[in-house]
Amino acid sequence: MARFFKKRIENQGMPPGSLIFIGTQKVETPFIKYRDFNARELNLEKVLDTEELPQPKKHKTQWYNVIGLHDTQFMEKVSSRLHIHPLAMEDVMNTGQRAKFEEFNEHLFITLKMLRFQEDELMVNSEQISFILNHDFLATFQEADGDTFDPIRSRLQRNKGMIRNSGPDYLTYALLDSIVDNYIYLIESMGEKIDDLELKVLDNTEKDILRQINAYKRELHFILKVVKPVRELLANLIKSQSVFIRQEQVLPYFKDLEGLVTHAIESVETYRTLLTDYLTLYHSGMSTKMNDIMKVLTIFSAIFIPLSFFAGVYGTNFQNLPELEYEYSYFIFWGVMVSMAVGMLFYFKQKDWF
Amino acid sequence: MARFFKKRIENQGMPPGSLIFIGTQKVETPFIKYRDFNARELNLEKVLDTEELPQPKKHKTQWYNVIGLHDTQFMEKVSSRLHIHPLAMEDVMNTGQRAKFEEFNEHLFITLKMLRFQEDELMVNSEQISFILNHDFLATFQEADGDTFDPIRSRLQRNKGMIRNSGPDYLTYALLDSIVDNYIYLIESMGEKIDDLELKVLDNTEKDILRQINAYKRELHFILKVVKPVRELLANLIKSQSVFIRQEQVLPYFKDLEGLVTHAIESVETYRTLLTDYLTLYHSGMSTKMNDIMKVLTIFSAIFIPLSFFAGVYGTNFQNLPELEYEYSYFIFWGVMVSMAVGMLFYFKQKDWF
Amino acid sequence: MARFFKKRIENQGMPPGSLIFIGTQKVETPFIKYRDFNARELNLEKVLDTEELPQPKKHKTQWYNVIGLHDTQFMEKVSSRLHIHPLAMEDVMNTGQRAKFEEFNEHLFITLKMLRFQEDELMVNSEQISFILNHDFLATFQEADGDTFDPIRSRLQRNKGMIRNSGPDYLTYALLDSIVDNYIYLIESMGEKIDDLELKVLDNTEKDILRQINAYKRELHFILKVVKPVRELLANLIKSQSVFIRQEQVLPYFKDLEGLVTHAIESVETYRTLLTDYLTLYHSGMSTKMNDIMKVLTIFSAIFIPLSFFAGVYGTNFQNLPELEYEYSYFIFWGVMVSMAVGMLFYFKQKDWF
Amino acid sequence: MARFFKKRIENQGMPPGSLIFIGTQKVETPFIKYRDFNARELNLEKVLDTEELPQPKKHKTQWYNVIGLHDTQFMEKVSSRLHIHPLAMEDVMNTGQRAKFEEFNEHLFITLKMLRFQEDELMVNSEQISFILNHDFLATFQEADGDTFDPIRSRLQRNKGMIRNSGPDYLTYALLDSIVDNYIYLIESMGEKIDDLELKVLDNTEKDILRQINAYKRELHFILKVVKPVRELLANLIKSQSVFIRQEQVLPYFKDLEGLVTHAIESVETYRTLLTDYLTLYHSGMSTKMNDIMKVLTIFSAIFIPLSFFAGVYGTNFQNLPELEYEYSYFIFWGVMVSMAVGMLFYFKQKDWF
Amino acid sequence: MARFFKKRIENQGMPPGSLIFIGTQKVETPFIKYRDFNARELNLEKVLDTEELPQPKKHKTQWYNVIGLHDTQFMEKVSSRLHIHPLAMEDVMNTGQRAKFEEFNEHLFITLKMLRFQEDELMVNSEQISFILNHDFLATFQEADGDTFDPIRSRLQRNKGMIRNSGPDYLTYALLDSIVDNYIYLIESMGEKIDDLELKVLDNTEKDILRQINAYKRELHFILKVVKPVRELLANLIKSQSVFIRQEQVLPYFKDLEGLVTHAIESVETYRTLLTDYLTLYHSGMSTKMNDIMKVLTIFSAIFIPLSFFAGVYGTNFQNLPELEYEYSYFIFWGVMVSMAVGMLFYFKQKDWF
Repeated sequence: MARFFKKRIENQGMPPGSLIFIGTQKVETPFIKYRDFNARELNLEKVLDTEELPQPKKHKTQWYNVIGLHDTQFMEKVSSRLHIHPLAMEDVMNTGQRAKFEEFNEHLFITLKMLRFQEDELMVNSEQISFILNHDFLATFQEADGDTFDPIRSRLQRNKGMIRNSGPDYLTYALLDSIVDNYIYLIESMGEKIDDLELKVLDNTEKDILRQINAYKRELHFILKVVKPVRELLANLIKSQSVFIRQEQVLPYFKDLEGLVTHAIESVETYRTLLTDYLTLYHSGMSTKMNDIMKVLTIFSAIFIPLSFFAGVYGTNFQNLPELEYEYSYFIFWGVMVSMAVGMLFYFKQKDWF
Repeated sequence: MARFFKKRIENQGMPPGSLIFIGTQKVETPFIKYRDFNARELNLEKVLDTEELPQPKKHKTQWYNVIGLHDTQFMEKVSSRLHIHPLAMEDVMNTGQRAKFEEFNEHLFITLKMLRFQEDELMVNSEQISFILNHDFLATFQEADGDTFDPIRSRLQRNKGMIRNSGPDYLTYALLDSIVDNYIYLIESMGEKIDDLELKVLDNTEKDILRQINAYKRELHFILKVVKPVRELLANLIKSQSVFIRQEQVLPYFKDLEGLVTHAIESVETYRTLLTDYLTLYHSGMSTKMNDIMKVLTIFSAIFIPLSFFAGVYGTNFQNLPELEYEYSYFIFWGVMVSMAVGMLFYFKQKDWF
Repeated sequence: MARFFKKRIENQGMPPGSLIFIGTQKVETPFIKYRDFNARELNLEKVLDTEELPQPKKHKTQWYNVIGLHDTQFMEKVSSRLHIHPLAMEDVMNTGQRAKFEEFNEHLFITLKMLRFQEDELMVNSEQISFILNHDFLATFQEADGDTFDPIRSRLQRNKGMIRNSGPDYLTYALLDSIVDNYIYLIESMGEKIDDLELKVLDNTEKDILRQINAYKRELHFILKVVKPVRELLANLIKSQSVFIRQEQVLPYFKDLEGLVTHAIESVETYRTLLTDYLTLYHSGMSTKMNDIMKVLTIFSAIFIPLSFFAGVYGTNFQNLPELEYEYSYFIFWGVMVSMAVGMLFYFKQKDWF
Repeated sequence: MARFFKKRIENQGMPPGSLIFIGTQKVETPFIKYRDFNARELNLEKVLDTEELPQPKKHKTQWYNVIGLHDTQFMEKVSSRLHIHPLAMEDVMNTGQRAKFEEFNEHLFITLKMLRFQEDELMVNSEQISFILNHDFLATFQEADGDTFDPIRSRLQRNKGMIRNSGPDYLTYALLDSIVDNYIYLIESMGEKIDDLELKVLDNTEKDILRQINAYKRELHFILKVVKPVRELLANLIKSQSVFIRQEQVLPYFKDLEGLVTHAIESVETYRTLLTDYLTLYHSGMSTKMNDIMKVLTIFSAIFIPLSFFAGVYGTNFQNLPELEYEYSYFIFWGVMVSMAVGMLFYFKQKDWF
Repeated sequence: MARFFKKRIENQGMPPGSLIFIGTQKVETPFIKYRDFNARELNLEKVLDTEELPQPKKHKTQWYNVIGLHDTQFMEKVSSRLHIHPLAMEDVMNTGQRAKFEEFNEHLFITLKMLRFQEDELMVNSEQISFILNHDFLATFQEADGDTFDPIRSRLQRNKGMIRNSGPDYLTYALLDSIVDNYIYLIESMGEKIDDLELKVLDNTEKDILRQINAYKRELHFILKVVKPVRELLANLIKSQSVFIRQEQVLPYFKDLEGLVTHAIESVETYRTLLTDYLTLYHSGMSTKMNDIMKVLTIFSAIFIPLSFFAGVYGTNFQNLPELEYEYSYFIFWGVMVSMAVGMLFYFKQKDWF
């Protein structure tokens, strides 16, 4: 679970407010995918240097998609070009951030995590994404060149939905919506696997069922740690009544999103409860199995240990042992032995042991 | 538990605000059961095309009962005819919705789930129903032609209660009331079955008791996930002070309903607690049984294993073994054996083992 | 636990607002114990017909004590005579109600449950009682002719305390107080029995201790379900600032009552915690017992099974078995056997097994 | 846990507002320790009759320390002399009260419990103390002549701290502070004992460890039930903004006290968590022990039971049993037996069983 | 866990408001590291006597770093020199304080704990640090000459970041930030160790795993007890809107810090959940092991106990035992024995026992 805070430890004692990258470098060179658009036209450029950034255009929405956060100098240039508050910039570069929403005079700041499920390792990974937006532009900051936003990009291209007619606030919503959609996809993918576990637990066929239940529990816990602050973030955004988000046209979409996140969180809680129930089932199964083993042991022991004693008695070498001489002793002995065994079996049968 | 969100996954990345059906098609062709009524007259029509919808009449309450949600074009027509907000319409068509109440300028929006208990499979199914209402009309949207509302329909027909004299707000209440009544019916039906489980657990007669307890727990969890948001919905509706709901005449009924839902939720919690207690009982029963098995094993072993040893001793072939030659040895041997066995039995009796 | 909602199920789909009795008929014919009083005089009449009810008198408090709720016609007469709101009347007649307080223009409405403990069956039963009060009168509705209020009645008779000088609000308080007193009596009666359980659990003497613990848990849960809404009820009543309750003279008494109910709820929680602790104790006791049984088994087995083997060895019929011929073999054999047994006993003693 | 409400049960049905003593009489005759003081002089009198009480003096703080609550007549005299509200007086005399703060027009009312730990019985006892204060005087009511306040009394005597210069509000604070100090002392005393339990649990040396853990849990629960309402009491007092407590000079002290009580409650929670952890540890220890016992049993059985069989085979009396005649059979037999035993031991060793 | 309140016990009954040191003396003589600075110059002095303290300078921030709290006289001098409120001063000297924020007219007061992890003993220790700040100065009070603040001190020296340009409020933030950084470092250090435990639990290799899990749980609980009040402290500070903290320039930093503390608390909760999961895993492992042991025992017993009986039968000395005389009896006997054994093995194999 030490997937948070990792590098923060190493930078302990650095002055707050100074730009330091905390995380793992995921791209070679940072770059910006710059887009500006309105209902009529869309312009796309990939720039490696902030100097090359086109001049902001009136009546157009600008989207600065910054990829790669490790280069402090580059980030400082971006920051000064877009007038980003140092505290926001510091959080952008610390990839161990908890999802949050903050209002500054010049812009809004949103940071959260995207999730990716590595099925073969039963492991969920996270990547941080931050949003800086005001009336004119949206700047997003990613660690790597991900593909979660591809549908949004193609919608921009194809001028589909209201996305081209709306400003940075609606664009922000659309991007957040695709992140949350991805949360839900991930949760439900895990959910289906967890549903399948029930039969395995009941049949007790797989050996490492316990390890699997534990792994799912751990990952759901991790997801919850990521998603819960997102609900907080959205609640804060909604109640902030920021001027950068149009209250009439765009806010209802964010409210809708909040409901979706609540739904996602409840699903995670449901699956966690299921897993806990599976554990109980597993343990009950173990107890039942133990009882069955004990019954087998007891039935065999209780039948044959006494019989062995009787055989032992007639194996003694006492000189005066009258039964031995009687002709039908041996057959009577067998008769008694068999009846004792059958009697015991009846007794255990009546006790409902088999 | 993957009974939520199912299709959302597949539509990941669709533009928010676009009408897409998320769910399973349950009727062939969508249609509308149109009713308008006031205290004096009631008119009922079944239309397949929005074009055929009669013109709204003054001083009459209109109820558009839309059945079948999968046909996007049909839904768009309904939506434009009734001036429904796109965000509301999107939620109507997504059957994986969490129950919620939303206020729009033109109308109110309510969505929740109806529940159905399939007793033979120990499985609760849900069907989504949405309400759009303003001063003039109520539109309800269902996936299939259900029968939960039949009593309401017949009350409308028979002009019973205040339902014909009241507007869409009271009609909404009446329909919600019948949904909640159905929740309670379902919960109490399950509750009676759960009550019956107690004896079975105590007697430990049935083999798959654990599987049953688990199934009930899972379904109660599912019910809770459906019903809890309904309380929220009602609380939001009550505190919204919407103009579409008459505060004096109709709001008290919604408050009453909220109390009923609270009661229902508490009942579910009670039954969940009961099931958890049953699990504890079951495990205690298992332990008791294990102890009993162990006692049988131990009594038999502790009595006969030593005796076998002594029989074994006199079965040895040592040439000089004085006891063997003494005439009454064998009988003394038996005497000693029997007293040892009786002694052991007394010891275990005193230990309260049987 | 299906002691709620019972009949509601059967009346599913009835129009809300219509008077239907939901519950079990407990008296043959409904009747009203009518009292009016002030500091100087008290008048008591038992009437079977609302027609016979005396005319309300100025400057006198009227108390209509309605007993028996099943007769719809009778209830309708009472309702119209006292101008009771239909929603309140509906709740009066539904004995599966959750305790609640509601304000109407004409009167206040309170409903809650009285509890009775049937000790021999370890079962708590409830009876619903409702209050309708305004400036002039108090009407109480009971299912049966109970006796919880007898002390209040005799205080009225004996003109003791401030009860004769105060209006319906204080009378309501006095009656609620006696109901809450009864809760506490019941909880503490159960509490004493639960305290006694501890020793039984520790001594593990009684066989059905588990069944008892479970029964107490279930009943405490039921009590909580009844009493918790009463606290809510009182909180709502206090914060309502209704004109029907004198804020200066009478409200402090209701506040006092709220504290008492809080105390009662905390006591129930305490006893529930105790019962859970007992369960843990019980299981620990079971484990200890199991360990003890296993020790006995292991000691006997570990000592005598090896010895039996050695006896077996000298019972073999090998022709060349030198030890058999040696004169003192048998005695040496015994010596070795005894030392082995003693050795084992020392080993187990040192392991602290007995 | 029936240390609350005890007598309330017996007085069920008494009119609310009437003075009845609910509790156990702890002193023979009630009396009042009367003190009045200001910065310059201190006067102390012990009076048995309210008639003898000195006339209140201007510019002096009066402290009426009433000891013994059982004498109704005496209490009524005190009540009328000091103009105490009947509802407050009733609570003073009911020693089963939950800690609370109430504001009356004439005075404030505070009631709470002092705790005493009887170490030898592992039992915490409580004694109720009530405070009535206004601008002029403080009246405290105790069941018995306790000594918790002795340090305060001696500080009054020695004119130490600001206590002599301040009014009844600061005196109240000082007394409450000493009660809370005593809570903390008690909690930490128990805490040290609980800390010591850990080793005992891990070593599993003491037999009645379970009984002890349970007793501590029960007592901590009792303490929590006493202390938690004290935090509420203080919160209510602070937010009441009563005129009887100087907001500038004295209120900060009460706030400080609230923090202390919060700290105390957290400590109790911590110790409760510890005890729960100990229980888990204990059970794990039991399981480990059980496993160890089972291993011993299994090792002995698995080695010697097969060997016994082989010995038995060569003890059979078949006439044609070739091995018996071979000269070295016996030695080979021993060889095989020993190798089998050693083999088994290796097998169990490799399984890490010993 | 008695790492709180330790000395408070001994000082029970001391007048509140009097200066007493509660804690352990950690330095020989108390002293003050005095600094004053602005953007241009920095002055540092170490003084042993408050008399020697330099006169406060205009337009400079003063930082009084008091080390050693045990000397009452020294503390009184500091207190009167800096005009510290007695209640604040009392809390400074009581090292068993819960973290808190308090506003006084003259200054703000903050107290909290620094944590140190002693890895070899699996033990977290705490040291109390208090802050008194107003517009002019910051006074910090430590028990010992710690090094957590060294990075801040060197930043002051090197004039790095905005620390030299800002007042006591930003300095307070910087110091708190370094304390919180240290919390996170500690939590993540423990977290990595806890992550490592999972494999050990699954492999069940280490003997004292249970003791370790318990120790980590205890320490995380302790950390939580320290860190949770810090979040409260920061929330109170933020909502206080104190004039001593510049709302525009400095408050956002404190808000940032609050988010960090929330993150830290969530991490602790995560690790606690992990440990609880490990315990469950451990117990499951124990059960599995027990089952395995039981299987071995049962397989051996169930195979060889019956065989022994048959061997015993043919070891009896009945005179008429026909099988004994038949030539191939012995070989048939072996054949039957081996088939029985093989049959049993098949049976257990089919039961999936090995």
